[in-house]
Amino acid sequence: MEWNGKNKVLIVGLGLIGGSYARALKRLGYTVTALSRRQETIDYALREGIIDAGSAAVDEKLVGEADTVVFALYPGVFKDWVRAHQSLLKPGAMLTDVTGVKSCIVYDIQEMLRPDVEFIAAHPMAGREVYGVENSDERIFREANFIVTPTARNTPEAVEWCKSLGRLLGFRKVSVLSPEEHDEMISFVSQLTHCIAVALMTCSDNRHLADYTGDSFRDLTRIARINDAMWSELFLLNREPLLRQMDLFLREFSELRGLLAAEDAEGLRGKMRLSTERRANFDK
Amino acid sequence: MEWNGKNKVLIVGLGLIGGSYARALKRLGYTVTALSRRQETIDYALREGIIDAGSAAVDEKLVGEADTVVFALYPGVFKDWVRAHQSLLKPGAMLTDVTGVKSCIVYDIQEMLRPDVEFIAAHPMAGREVYGVENSDERIFREANFIVTPTARNTPEAVEWCKSLGRLLGFRKVSVLSPEEHDEMISFVSQLTHCIAVALMTCSDNRHLADYTGDSFRDLTRIARINDAMWSELFLLNREPLLRQMDLFLREFSELRGLLAAEDAEGLRGKMRLSTERRANFDK
Repeated sequence: MEWNGKNKVLIVGLGLIGGSYARALKRLGYTVTALSRRQETIDYALREGIIDAGSAAVDEKLVGEADTVVFALYPGVFKDWVRAHQSLLKPGAMLTDVTGVKSCIVYDIQEMLRPDVEFIAAHPMAGREVYGVENSDERIFREANFIVTPTARNTPEAVEWCKSLGRLLGFRKVSVLSPEEHDEMISFVSQLTHCIAVALMTCSDNRHLADYTGDSFRDLTRIARINDAMWSELFLLNREPLLRQMDLFLREFSELRGLLAAEDAEGLRGKMRLSTERRANFDK
Repeated sequence: MEWNGKNKVLIVGLGLIGGSYARALKRLGYTVTALSRRQETIDYALREGIIDAGSAAVDEKLVGEADTVVFALYPGVFKDWVRAHQSLLKPGAMLTDVTGVKSCIVYDIQEMLRPDVEFIAAHPMAGREVYGVENSDERIFREANFIVTPTARNTPEAVEWCKSLGRLLGFRKVSVLSPEEHDEMISFVSQLTHCIAVALMTCSDNRHLADYTGDSFRDLTRIARINDAMWSELFLLNREPLLRQMDLFLREFSELRGLLAAEDAEGLRGKMRLSTERRANFDK
């Protein structure tokens, strides 16, 4: 269970993240194969040299030869795939994923999985506002975090193996969290912020103001361009933690509104000072 | 009333924006002087060659010689200054400002002003998260908008003069809006976004999550570092439009929360699609 040049890596789902994994691992000398629904995706990846082989069908040989399988699928599709095709996996294969929510996935997959393969979950916290293998780019990992989320079923070796993968891919920081800690964290740093950006964009018809916006506004709303199929699924799968964060934010924003309505300058300044102090912790 | 090398420009209030005006105008060959409360500010600006002369007191000669006076003061202080010292102004002088709110300032200043000088208001929509003349930098104007906000009292010549100033300073775009249109616009594109960033930072103690944040989160909260004295004043002076925007946002965010609570995937996707579509209008 070590990363060396003889590993064959199969990527299942060759989109932005799957494609970026493929590029990085291929450059490092691994044999990289892929399964993806659309034949054009496979053709493109072969033509560009992103993968060594691939198929739009579930190819028994490609699955059976893989030492490592990276699932870069939507959460629901991921479970279905494992249920339907795990019999094809090579004994001893290491499985990992890139899913943005964890508790609702990891236990179910581990529960249903053959005992002779191991699934160690991870979340590469990288992304762009564009999709597909055509936009894949391993540079998106450079400033990003890689979170490994083991459970009690995982071996220490698998955790180390997965941390090595994060480092191989070039992530800035590799951490370990429980699935629950991960989901709580992601509900705040990613999902709540996406909700805010969406609500800011949809709360009024603001198109005529585009000419007057500065970089702050554009920064704040960049993530308002959102893949609705993927993000609605991620929100719903992490519903409880996200609702808690949304409620905390709603209460705080309403309190700020109350201070303004009451013309409470000192109260407003107190919030701003706390905000400034807290934000300083988030500087790189 | 034209910009030529003989103009003497006095900057009142030599902070980040006043200092950046001074640098730009000095580079263009104008004689630039300044008044600022702290002697160290004046000393620094003289030493760095940002101004030709300056004083920490209201110097009669500097005020009396200026063809143009740029007020880069907090709103309240600005009115006080004009009330106290306008008798020193040169007949025919052109006055402008950099204040971030307009209706509550422009009419009052024009009302109290001597008839032989003209005040044409403007808002250079540029800024940084740092303050003071030491951080002034005319490059902050390059990607920014310059808004001229005339009233019925202003001459067309003054409006043109002020637009020329925006272009001289190197702003990307120069526009004209009424004070009321400006305040409505700024309540959405700037003040609401600052409220959101502050509430996101203060809604829970999130310091332990700093390690896991990516660029999206940092972009969204960059403006949560906020000058509490200046922004609380700006919020209170633009209270009505800002409360309207905050209520629109609150209603929308609550609706999004309701869709998630009700597990309404199609409703969530609808909001995300609208958001994505609207945000496309804001790309540069």
